Amino acid sequence: MAQGFSAFDHEMMARALRLAELGLYTTTPNPRVGCVIVNAGKIVGEGWHLRAGGQHAEVHALRAAAERARGASVYVTLEPCSHQGRTPPCADALLAAGVRRVVVAMPDPNPLVAGQGLARLRAAGVLAEEGLLAVEAGELNIGFVARMTRSRPWLRLKVAASLDGKTALRNGASQWLTGADARQDGHRWRARACAILTGIGTVRHDDPQLDVRGVAGLASDSRQPLKVVVDSRLELPLGARLLRGARVLLAAASPDTSRVAAFREAGAEVLLLPGADGQVDLRALFAELARRGINEVHAEAGFRLSGSLLGAGLVDELLLYLAPCLLGDAARGMFDLPALESLAGKRSLLIRDLRPVGPDLRLLARFA
Amino acid sequence: MAQGFSAFDHEMMARALRLAELGLYTTTPNPRVGCVIVNAGKIVGEGWHLRAGGQHAEVHALRAAAERARGASVYVTLEPCSHQGRTPPCADALLAAGVRRVVVAMPDPNPLVAGQGLARLRAAGVLAEEGLLAVEAGELNIGFVARMTRSRPWLRLKVAASLDGKTALRNGASQWLTGADARQDGHRWRARACAILTGIGTVRHDDPQLDVRGVAGLASDSRQPLKVVVDSRLELPLGARLLRGARVLLAAASPDTSRVAAFREAGAEVLLLPGADGQVDLRALFAELARRGINEVHAEAGFRLSGSLLGAGLVDELLLYLAPCLLGDAARGMFDLPALESLAGKRSLLIRDLRPVGPDLRLLARFA
Repeated sequence: MAQGFSAFDHEMMARALRLAELGLYTTTPNPRVGCVIVNAGKIVGEGWHLRAGGQHAEVHALRAAAERARGASVYVTLEPCSHQGRTPPCADALLAAGVRRVVVAMPDPNPLVAGQGLARLRAAGVLAEEGLLAVEAGELNIGFVARMTRSRPWLRLKVAASLDGKTALRNGASQWLTGADARQDGHRWRARACAILTGIGTVRHDDPQLDVRGVAGLASDSRQPLKVVVDSRLELPLGARLLRGARVLLAAASPDTSRVAAFREAGAEVLLLPGADGQVDLRALFAELARRGINEVHAEAGFRLSGSLLGAGLVDELLLYLAPCLLGDAARGMFDLPALESLAGKRSLLIRDLRPVGPDLRLLARFA
Repeated sequence: MAQGFSAFDHEMMARALRLAELGLYTTTPNPRVGCVIVNAGKIVGEGWHLRAGGQHAEVHALRAAAERARGASVYVTLEPCSHQGRTPPCADALLAAGVRRVVVAMPDPNPLVAGQGLARLRAAGVLAEEGLLAVEAGELNIGFVARMTRSRPWLRLKVAASLDGKTALRNGASQWLTGADARQDGHRWRARACAILTGIGTVRHDDPQLDVRGVAGLASDSRQPLKVVVDSRLELPLGARLLRGARVLLAAASPDTSRVAAFREAGAEVLLLPGADGQVDLRALFAELARRGINEVHAEAGFRLSGSLLGAGLVDELLLYLAPCLLGDAARGMFDLPALESLAGKRSLLIRDLRPVGPDLRLLARFA
């Protein structure tokens, strides 16, 4: 379908995608969307969605274009909505403005839209086309698409390890294995996530703040991701640093009433999700996170929880920082997984990105 | 010193280095050397050293240049020899040919030469300069330089592992973790080595042939590296595949006379190098390999021997193939090393090269 698009079409959609990226850290639970309006070969309006409750990208762009939207071509990275949400349907706004052509990168995976926006435009005589830079648009909203199509957030598991695959010394020491550049890079990945997930083991060893810090272009009072701690027996110390910030969710398997009350007192929410073995039911947790509008989960967990997330088939992507050093086999490994009897059982990934980050390497790999 | 060289000088020396590389697989124990002779801006002779006992690069180039060598400039990647070896001194041949200028990339680290070749040229009125592309020349002969300057070969340790740093399943299965491209690439690294080193554990698990196979441009009857097996208690099965080829050296700590005789019968040499703990004295082994003219050692060892080589400070470089998969922590790790108490004790490396090899990654890192 994309063969019908011109070089100019590609350029405009690429621009709309770059605008959409401006919402990378803020639109949750909504998708990142950008819009460019062109009349007679000139850009007459642009916009992007900044945060939920605010105007959609198309509305910003239409406002900028004003009368010049009549007869114009509209490039938008996601199908315009056709339903009344917190804001009126964008498809209607485009029709009211009298645009001639609408090009969308990808249909809205939201079942409330799912082609109806395009259908409404077409029914009104607008030339509506789709599929231009669709892969790129899907990547930008990989979490939103995951939540809409499978009712489960996208899970990116971050691990920092030595070249011999060790994440910490036997005594737990892991600060700092990777350099400052890699740690800073990690904060940018945290910033784009809707939730940051960790386990009680990591809290015990590192007492992380689990928030986003020092990301350029991110205001100090900006949205912070939800902090999620998998803590089956509710062992989190009440003095843990992550409890100081807002929005903490403890996933537990133990209904210890006094502990639950203490955490609620401390401002944290406790969710009881008992699984089969006294552990938190991780799949139930992810279903609940999806219900709450969590698109992308960024996990920074230890050996056990990382292994459990992998074992439960919940990990979509591995964000691996490799420090150029060796720790030796007595140090801690990456993933607690059942022993394999055959190499046919190995978990294969596809390396999508590989680059140096300071003296370290960063590798992004997706499960095949 | 290099600032005095022209762009043309650089081009000619780069060409000489590429010629030197043609001897990558064959010159051992000699260094790889290339030579370009230029008269009035034109190349009038080229040559490279192909194998020990054959002519040196300068002699090949002088023969090609014939009378045109008179008054010419000579670019040679290593200082011309000044001593009578298996062939007459090249410095004398250059003088006899009446060359005007000699540019060398690096002085010969061989204590029998070490500046005397240049001194002899200068004493005869030849303009002799050094230091052009010296780093590149040193890399090409990194093993020869190591042997000459520290009486110990260069040791490159090859490891193939999953992204979580595992080299084999708990049951020992490791074939094949990496893809065909990585295995083929590994054979090219074997081919440039003077010796391939492994341990009894790897022989037991994989029964490797430990030879060079399927390297493009390498004749089937080409030189094969010496095979060295660290086998402290002489447990190598007499039916091991690596015993079928020629040139096998067993390093042992046990003077079991009947086993020694059996291996000698099978065509293998047995070297008794008992260390402190019933194990082979690895440093003594490497000193002996240097005495035998071994420049580069390529090790493909398991968990224990790799750890021992690292522990003995013998490893110069890590050649790491990472397969895009996870095996989990029950699988075998890379290096058996003593537990660290502090991250300050980590073994740091500098990543020198990183590239995809088929679906795998290849990483070359050098100890800092």
